[in-house]
Amino acid sequence: MTDEPITPPDRRLAAWRIFLRAHARVVRELEQELQADQGMALTDYDVLVQLAAAEERRLRMSELADRLLLSRSGVTRLVDRLVADGLVERVVCEDDRRGQWASLTETGLARLRQASPTHLAGVARHFLDRFSPDELPALERMLSRVAAER
Amino acid sequence: MTDEPITPPDRRLAAWRIFLRAHARVVRELEQELQADQGMALTDYDVLVQLAAAEERRLRMSELADRLLLSRSGVTRLVDRLVADGLVERVVCEDDRRGQWASLTETGLARLRQASPTHLAGVARHFLDRFSPDELPALERMLSRVAAER
Repeated sequence: MTDEPITPPDRRLAAWRIFLRAHARVVRELEQELQADQGMALTDYDVLVQLAAAEERRLRMSELADRLLLSRSGVTRLVDRLVADGLVERVVCEDDRRGQWASLTETGLARLRQASPTHLAGVARHFLDRFSPDELPALERMLSRVAAER
Repeated sequence: MTDEPITPPDRRLAAWRIFLRAHARVVRELEQELQADQGMALTDYDVLVQLAAAEERRLRMSELADRLLLSRSGVTRLVDRLVADGLVERVVCEDDRRGQWASLTETGLARLRQASPTHLAGVARHFLDRFSPDELPALERMLSRVAAER
């Protein structure tokens, strides 16, 4: 037993704790399923998805870091591994020799196509299917205020 | 431009992406503020909070890992650092010599009390204050379905 309360009794904190727990649980399930069924880490999957969605299937490293909300050094480590596996390659663009770019290879695109049914089925099962058609837009509207740039 | 769609056109995925982005943004803000104002990592803060809330301010390492939704090895590394800083100590309990326990020190409790206003103000500013009093219980009810044990 603690003698004094550590936190002020803000009853709203219950919603914050549920938000954290919801995120941790669903991400853990998705990680485990993707690893078990596809032998792929969720962080690697996220990189491949971002590159596949980008114009010419490539992104400057700094832009990739922004989209993944990761540090530049964290993204460099991720991409180094994907390059070693042949799923991504580093390119220097004709018109921009300063920045390093990461580009999805054909092998990377094929791996992503193979892995995405596992991931998307998990997102539906662990997250989307738990809400009614009315609830999802409400959830999206509320959370968009937290997700917005500031 | 990608030639073929990588993901099926499930319009519900927008809510999932907003959920991920909301989590990443608020956690990043909280991490930066806690580091800047208190020189403390958010992962360390989370360990101290769990121990402070536990009976006799201590938890078995496996229980601490469960509460933080971390692997056992991840928690061991975290606790090792907090022990080196004098905020946590390892104890062996009289009635349970098999398991290792982590116990919050007086220094650790004082550090937590010092750091918690920064953290709680951030949780309010970046998350709680963005919802109306009606919305928070709705959000909590919806996300509790995702957070539940399964």
